[in-house]
Amino acid sequence: MSKSFKVAVLPGDGIGPEVMAEALQVLDAVEKKYDVRFERTFANVGGAGIDLEGKALPQTTVDICKASDAILFGSVGGPKWESLPPDEQPERGALLPLRKIFGLYANLRPAIIFPALTGASSLKEEVIAGGFNVLVVRELTGGIYFSQPKGIEGQGRERIGIDTMRYSVPEIERITHVAFQAARKRDKRVMSIDKANVLSTSVLWREVVETVAKEYPDVKLSHMYVDNAAMQLVRWPKQFDVILCENMFGDILSDEAAMLTGSLGMLPSASLAEGSFGMYEPSGGSAPDIAGQGIANPIAQILSASMMLRYSFALVEAADAIDAAVEKVLNQGLRTGDIFQDRPGERKVNTKEMGAAIVAAL
Amino acid sequence: MSKSFKVAVLPGDGIGPEVMAEALQVLDAVEKKYDVRFERTFANVGGAGIDLEGKALPQTTVDICKASDAILFGSVGGPKWESLPPDEQPERGALLPLRKIFGLYANLRPAIIFPALTGASSLKEEVIAGGFNVLVVRELTGGIYFSQPKGIEGQGRERIGIDTMRYSVPEIERITHVAFQAARKRDKRVMSIDKANVLSTSVLWREVVETVAKEYPDVKLSHMYVDNAAMQLVRWPKQFDVILCENMFGDILSDEAAMLTGSLGMLPSASLAEGSFGMYEPSGGSAPDIAGQGIANPIAQILSASMMLRYSFALVEAADAIDAAVEKVLNQGLRTGDIFQDRPGERKVNTKEMGAAIVAAL
Ligand SMILES: [Mg+2]
Ligand SMILES: [Mg+2]
Repeated sequence: MSKSFKVAVLPGDGIGPEVMAEALQVLDAVEKKYDVRFERTFANVGGAGIDLEGKALPQTTVDICKASDAILFGSVGGPKWESLPPDEQPERGALLPLRKIFGLYANLRPAIIFPALTGASSLKEEVIAGGFNVLVVRELTGGIYFSQPKGIEGQGRERIGIDTMRYSVPEIERITHVAFQAARKRDKRVMSIDKANVLSTSVLWREVVETVAKEYPDVKLSHMYVDNAAMQLVRWPKQFDVILCENMFGDILSDEAAMLTGSLGMLPSASLAEGSFGMYEPSGGSAPDIAGQGIANPIAQILSASMMLRYSFALVEAADAIDAAVEKVLNQGLRTGDIFQDRPGERKVNTKEMGAAIVAAL
Repeated sequence: MSKSFKVAVLPGDGIGPEVMAEALQVLDAVEKKYDVRFERTFANVGGAGIDLEGKALPQTTVDICKASDAILFGSVGGPKWESLPPDEQPERGALLPLRKIFGLYANLRPAIIFPALTGASSLKEEVIAGGFNVLVVRELTGGIYFSQPKGIEGQGRERIGIDTMRYSVPEIERITHVAFQAARKRDKRVMSIDKANVLSTSVLWREVVETVAKEYPDVKLSHMYVDNAAMQLVRWPKQFDVILCENMFGDILSDEAAMLTGSLGMLPSASLAEGSFGMYEPSGGSAPDIAGQGIANPIAQILSASMMLRYSFALVEAADAIDAAVEKVLNQGLRTGDIFQDRPGERKVNTKEMGAAIVAAL
């Protein structure tokens, strides 16, 4: 009997629907090659949700997601909806509630530089020769972005702005387990980021991380201050395997690490709940400027589907096969416009051609 | 009548005394060339303070600093004092009290990549061709490193770590003035960093910065989220002139920007109080591994002296002359060991030779 998984498919706005179509072709190919089925249910989100059902995250969409094993998310937003109140706009109106409803506390952002694309990085060839592969594991629901008290008190020049960074032991424990479990499937090294020389949350963070680490004697744990990490990423990114961060440090370092690859539009991300549920989406935006032209790069969406197979469905072999197919097609010289550099051996392709080539390489 | 300034000279530990000697030679040369005198009083600090007077910051040193117009600081710390309790060690025992006693609320850290040294950066030549010059202005006495409440509450797995980020209007106003005044003497652009989409302190920060900016209609103000800034520094550092940050964001971004230059040991820093008082020191450490060998790079210390002339004494012409002399000597190919790359035209020199060459170039 074949395994079957329920996937809520939320293409969203801009290039979302175009690149999602290619990711679904890849899932078709995986179904054929492996004994597995992906039952897909489409739902509206973001601007599409607003236009068709009056809300960035319609209740029908929530219900479909709840009935699924994972969410494959495209991208949301665009100029059409920018005049709405912030909380009703596609990004805040869809992503924040989804994180909250589904308890998506672990954000996984790989920063991968493919050997074929080292030219796109602003780092020197000698620093990135052979590529690198860093996974930032970011706590997503706690810390200074969400803790109370938060606000502005007083009047006029007497006003004081206040934010609170707060972490409990269980919050730190669960994200630490995510990082160590991910490291086990990779190079078995976790670098925990904090600022324990000045922050109390960091002192607790470091202590809890060290306690959890004892359950993973096969994984090597190190610690680094956040300011030093911002330096070390630039100096020698290959020194990192898994980087474990609280929410804000992870926000900053995952973006820095992604930019170091020079291929921001190529990177997937995962947001995981306890258990196996997760939401998977490209790190980049909805790129309204090129939407509808059939030229967007579908690789981030395809790699997001691969992460879904790896982290929610434990289909590691199929996930590895997708990742290898992407790398093979890049090595063959296929490039969508965003990564085309007109070097010898490169061939410019559109969204569908790139998707078809990856399916063929599977 | 010639102008006269009182300078407290605190060489400290490791390479501190060696590189300070060269900075003092440069001050001698400035005295000869310009109608100015620097009255110097030496004082012990850091490990030297501990060894000679029992404390990292002896009271005699505090008194000498109080009687001075500025502090020229070397560097402190080394393995000899690492077994002391943290608060008594050279760094925490000297630097934190100095900041507090003298109200050093504005940290200025230039990230300069000299055209002759672009090879040392991990960024591609095309990204940094012609060098870049970014000044990070960091608020140094407020924010999450110092605000209350802070601590760990509860017992066992019930523990909660808490830090507070807090900013008042006057705190934001005064650091904003520092950034805009610095920008006026440079390329007249301030990029204010915040995370106003999620932090209340950032909402207040942005509003106060915009209000202060109205007093500087000749300076262009822009805003950037801290995670985007961490990316943009890597992508295209030349887009920045002055970067204005609260304490923690400035800690992270100033280190990232410094590392982008690839010449961390070359960079000076200033910590300013209200009025004209300031403390000036190299960004790098005391480098105990090469101390006493006469091979340390004195440029960071010499550029710290230049910053003292510029920011505390308003001797802009002399400061410009020192900066130009450093650049000239680098263009001539002189290199201490830390920046020697054995390229055509380079000549390896020791600490004294580098200092003498800069004096000669003045
Ligand atoms: Mg971010
Ligand atoms: Mg730092």
